[in-house]
Amino acid sequence: MTSIDLRATPARLSSADGQFDAKLAARLHWSAAQDDAIEQRVQDILADVRARGDVAVLDYTARFDGVQAESLTALELQAGELAAAFDALPAAQRDALQQAAARIRRYHAWQKQQGGETATYVDEDGTLLGQKVTPLDRVGIYVPGGKAAYPSSVLMNAIPAHVAGVGEIIMVVPTPRGAKNPLVLAAAHVAGVTRAFTIGGAQAVAALAYGTATVPKVDKITGPGNAYVASAKKHVFGQVGIDMIAGPSEILVLADGSTPPDWVAMDLFSQAEHDELAQSILLSPDAAYLDAVQAAINRLLPSMPRAEIIAKSLTNRGALIHTRSMQEACEIANRIAPEHLEVSSREPQRWEPLLKHAGAIFLGAYTSESLGDYCAGPNHVLPTSGTARFSSPLSVYDFQKRSSLIAVSQAGAQKLGHIAQVLAEGEGLHAHAEAARLRVG
Amino acid sequence: MTSIDLRATPARLSSADGQFDAKLAARLHWSAAQDDAIEQRVQDILADVRARGDVAVLDYTARFDGVQAESLTALELQAGELAAAFDALPAAQRDALQQAAARIRRYHAWQKQQGGETATYVDEDGTLLGQKVTPLDRVGIYVPGGKAAYPSSVLMNAIPAHVAGVGEIIMVVPTPRGAKNPLVLAAAHVAGVTRAFTIGGAQAVAALAYGTATVPKVDKITGPGNAYVASAKKHVFGQVGIDMIAGPSEILVLADGSTPPDWVAMDLFSQAEHDELAQSILLSPDAAYLDAVQAAINRLLPSMPRAEIIAKSLTNRGALIHTRSMQEACEIANRIAPEHLEVSSREPQRWEPLLKHAGAIFLGAYTSESLGDYCAGPNHVLPTSGTARFSSPLSVYDFQKRSSLIAVSQAGAQKLGHIAQVLAEGEGLHAHAEAARLRVG
Repeated sequence: MTSIDLRATPARLSSADGQFDAKLAARLHWSAAQDDAIEQRVQDILADVRARGDVAVLDYTARFDGVQAESLTALELQAGELAAAFDALPAAQRDALQQAAARIRRYHAWQKQQGGETATYVDEDGTLLGQKVTPLDRVGIYVPGGKAAYPSSVLMNAIPAHVAGVGEIIMVVPTPRGAKNPLVLAAAHVAGVTRAFTIGGAQAVAALAYGTATVPKVDKITGPGNAYVASAKKHVFGQVGIDMIAGPSEILVLADGSTPPDWVAMDLFSQAEHDELAQSILLSPDAAYLDAVQAAINRLLPSMPRAEIIAKSLTNRGALIHTRSMQEACEIANRIAPEHLEVSSREPQRWEPLLKHAGAIFLGAYTSESLGDYCAGPNHVLPTSGTARFSSPLSVYDFQKRSSLIAVSQAGAQKLGHIAQVLAEGEGLHAHAEAARLRVG
Repeated sequence: MTSIDLRATPARLSSADGQFDAKLAARLHWSAAQDDAIEQRVQDILADVRARGDVAVLDYTARFDGVQAESLTALELQAGELAAAFDALPAAQRDALQQAAARIRRYHAWQKQQGGETATYVDEDGTLLGQKVTPLDRVGIYVPGGKAAYPSSVLMNAIPAHVAGVGEIIMVVPTPRGAKNPLVLAAAHVAGVTRAFTIGGAQAVAALAYGTATVPKVDKITGPGNAYVASAKKHVFGQVGIDMIAGPSEILVLADGSTPPDWVAMDLFSQAEHDELAQSILLSPDAAYLDAVQAAINRLLPSMPRAEIIAKSLTNRGALIHTRSMQEACEIANRIAPEHLEVSSREPQRWEPLLKHAGAIFLGAYTSESLGDYCAGPNHVLPTSGTARFSSPLSVYDFQKRSSLIAVSQAGAQKLGHIAQVLAEGEGLHAHAEAARLRVG
């Protein structure tokens, strides 16, 4: 590695440039390359686990993770082992996990009160209408192992399920060459995971979706994973529920120039350090401020342990964009629909109403994205790649479902029966009309 | 057609039978046969529309629907044409459409108040947390043409979008050989559709998902369709949002014997008349009642215009199941997780708390499913094939999305900063820790 590698030079764009739209589109472009070889292998693994169950899962775990076991039962982590992992942590880590969990729990409990509970009303005919909200019976949480083993993701997936009232939360986490991450195990203990297995990849997704002799079939699978996991989740969708398929992580910062440039530079770094494909974009109407942030990037980069990843991410996918105004910056943010959107301004509440599409909106200079990632309370599993245009953060609602409730009164059946008969006959559905007619008179 | 064809004989099962579970499972079994030929043709159509836009859509519309047009603009239905279709209806149909629309609108407006609005709270450090709820900008509604052209589906898809505040609602509806369904056009007028095109199939899904010169790109596509449409929606999922992929329609009736057998027989018919694959199941602890319903089926079937479809559906997929008790019937209903669940009992409120999994629950003898299909108010787009275990009726929420709101106070940043630093360092994400640390002190 030479010092050349350690220059992080995001593209410098200006919204006044006639080519701006095309240049921005080129920067934003990302698509999950459909890899036919991965697709085929995943389909084979899914079919094999469906047919051979435990034995197939054991075979793939030996082959891909280098973990040999006589039975899948031997790969189940016992509650005592999770508790022991927690107890063995330094006190600072135990406290941090518990405080983060408490804040996440509080937010999602509040969220459950916003429409996550059964509600009904009665109309003027005495007919009752409403929605019954119930938790899922059993869900699977996929937790990546290896280099991207994030205990915070255990909290962010399991706690909303727990708050929703899910009966059983089954965690799977691969342990390549048998290496268990103590923080992941401790987080599972804190978050209320019911059972945990040290399996991963498409074989773990298949085990959860179809069930095996040892791994119980779940109703929904959430959590991030590599290309095999993402492909497997997409294939089992319909058989079970899934959360979103995530792309690379992104941050977009709107800055009016009032936040110390070091703070914003570090926020851009904290996105970029995830992954070379991660995207960090800064928008500001203040060109001198963009210069100052670039200077901060140059100064701070060498001290970063992940400097090489940060440099590649910022240089290949990052951008510092000069806009005509904060208003225009908000409009551009809406076009991008970023996963994380920081409003680094003295007047964040002035700009917030202009923002329509984002996974999470971080308001004011003190609200660094990293506080939201770990412990502010709201979920850190957010829609990426512009899907915030139509989707939402992972939530307590993902672990509940609604059933409509309808109790038509005798009086109501008279009135509704006439409407239904006319419309059913119009659709050529005579039995529908007749079922309504029988209740009339 | 001989009279033999007109016997509808649902399987007669008993939960006391040692083979009951296997027999029930065999009846319930249904899976969307993956048809590789359809998959390949759909992928070709999607790629072609993406590449050639309007011209490709026109080509497929000529080939599949027998509709020739010089431009896609010529296939747009003007607002005046929708209004004229409404005005030309008999008064009874106009009234029925408007009354149904008003009830559906009222239910979904009530639903929007249950968590479908922005909400926040402030914690003891002055940190604001919450969720901002916003409508989607533009959605596409797929409406089938031909034999299953249902104006009620226009209402059920477009009204929740309209209530959510969606900016533009784009309807597509194929018109095979140019035949327009006046009720579908009138429903579009009543429901607040913004623009409508007479195109269908995978080519219409592609036009909505990718956009063409004439058809605007949407953020989400909802609505039922044939195997080509279902496959196309599954392929574009991720690029845009979609609602569920529906299987055959189902009804399950729990009966304590207090409802006139004719009423229940007609409810079973009204499901069966949709489709030979539709499923109608009756559960009762009263064997004599099951006999009475079978007798009603025999007596009522010949007068049904769709008798042949009903007979095939009931004979091949229907079941009358004798249970030990109403409690057991509720347990079996939970295992099946039906789309429509009627509780035809004198004490529906006694059994409702025992029911966990269903798309919609119809309580009491007066609540025929057909009233819910057209005009009770709740949505008639419901999860099928057991997916009520993890999914919900179409709703106003499907046309909104949430963005988390986080505004950390200076005091909050001190407390949260310490937690985030510990956890970020534990995950090896130094820039995350540093971004938090900069806000401390």
